[in-house]
Amino acid sequence: MLHKSFDVCFSPALVDYYDIAQKNVVLIDILRATSTICTAFEWGAKEIIPVASEDEARTYKQNGYIVAGERDGKILDFADFGNSPFNFMNERIKGQSIAYCTTNGTKAIFSAARATNIVIGSYLNFSALTGFLIKDKRDILFLCSGWKNRFNIEDSLFAGAVCAKLLSDGSFAPASDAAIVAADLWNNVNGHLMDYIEKSDHYKRLKKLELDDVIEYCHTFDKTDKLPFFTGNSIIDTYEVL
Amino acid sequence: MLHKSFDVCFSPALVDYYDIAQKNVVLIDILRATSTICTAFEWGAKEIIPVASEDEARTYKQNGYIVAGERDGKILDFADFGNSPFNFMNERIKGQSIAYCTTNGTKAIFSAARATNIVIGSYLNFSALTGFLIKDKRDILFLCSGWKNRFNIEDSLFAGAVCAKLLSDGSFAPASDAAIVAADLWNNVNGHLMDYIEKSDHYKRLKKLELDDVIEYCHTFDKTDKLPFFTGNSIIDTYEVL
Repeated sequence: MLHKSFDVCFSPALVDYYDIAQKNVVLIDILRATSTICTAFEWGAKEIIPVASEDEARTYKQNGYIVAGERDGKILDFADFGNSPFNFMNERIKGQSIAYCTTNGTKAIFSAARATNIVIGSYLNFSALTGFLIKDKRDILFLCSGWKNRFNIEDSLFAGAVCAKLLSDGSFAPASDAAIVAADLWNNVNGHLMDYIEKSDHYKRLKKLELDDVIEYCHTFDKTDKLPFFTGNSIIDTYEVL
Repeated sequence: MLHKSFDVCFSPALVDYYDIAQKNVVLIDILRATSTICTAFEWGAKEIIPVASEDEARTYKQNGYIVAGERDGKILDFADFGNSPFNFMNERIKGQSIAYCTTNGTKAIFSAARATNIVIGSYLNFSALTGFLIKDKRDILFLCSGWKNRFNIEDSLFAGAVCAKLLSDGSFAPASDAAIVAADLWNNVNGHLMDYIEKSDHYKRLKKLELDDVIEYCHTFDKTDKLPFFTGNSIIDTYEVL
């Protein structure tokens, strides 16, 4: 049996070393962008426009868009919301286009723009994501947003969780050492996930900023069946296009 | 007590995202460059000149140097030796300057040239390396050579082995998620190291090329007390300069 492959890229700065043109790329920024995006669609957002710079976000604001944004974990002073998924649990976003600027997640999306499909992955849509990947049968790259181009625990662990699921399905094989190590990391941590997350830099960073209220929510499986999808310009609810 | 920190960089392509100017950088390319360099000094080499391109290696050859080199695991056709440490167990290298060109290791050395000290790490000089790092007390970055800028198992595991040793010493703390994960990877694998190495891409690559005879040797602790050191131009036997 021919296996489809899955690979893991631990930093957006390494994505050019991967051949992704024909692949499904799964964008991962567990704390907090991809968790937040999944939440926004569950609450009825129409579209999320990833914005690379603070200046661009300000222009969207001036043009009447809802703007959500943070830099280094802190809300931009002109934004309507920060980057907490709890901010998006709000009737106000229903049917709206939202311009969204984050430290790491936005950069990661644009770094992978040449892929066939870029889908948004988080624990919150784990079963929707894995169901799609297994059914679609393309090769996969998990793209971890990391922290300022460096490795982080929470994104790598989530990649490992999906890798472990794909391995158990039996029709996928790891493409590289990174995929093997990510799956092993997950298997070693499974059962005491939150204890491990507490060791991470970003847990400590969010705790210091008193933004740690979302961490457990962002590590909860299957709160939505949405699978947000990047069109090249904006992120929309997948099921309308696939 | 103020702890010194250690960090791990999984790819030479990420080194610019680390502040290394005042640090000890430990260069790691277990299969096979840093294992080979340690072996060369144990056998009396005077100096190893890292060479970035095949053309430059050819020029050294024309100027009468001994040249060792490989690309993608295979010996360069004009070289005296390939990249196997066994090639360097040879009286011919005693007192010699050797121009050395490898796929990943050479690139990694030059990527870190702005660090205070770049030392060469391998299982073969594990105790010499850890003894120096603990005594010297600078912050440390472990720089994995990886495979064509991507993560690899064998370098990350070795970084983890040294991280675990530094943690047990008690005067160092991990600087980042990467350092925590590397140490945990080592702790999970310790006791069945060679089984884990057999899962790696480079094990399979070397096996296919029938170059796998060195893999076990390259995972043997303490065959030398040398700690090779990069001066900015060439690698020399540390104890002459520190």
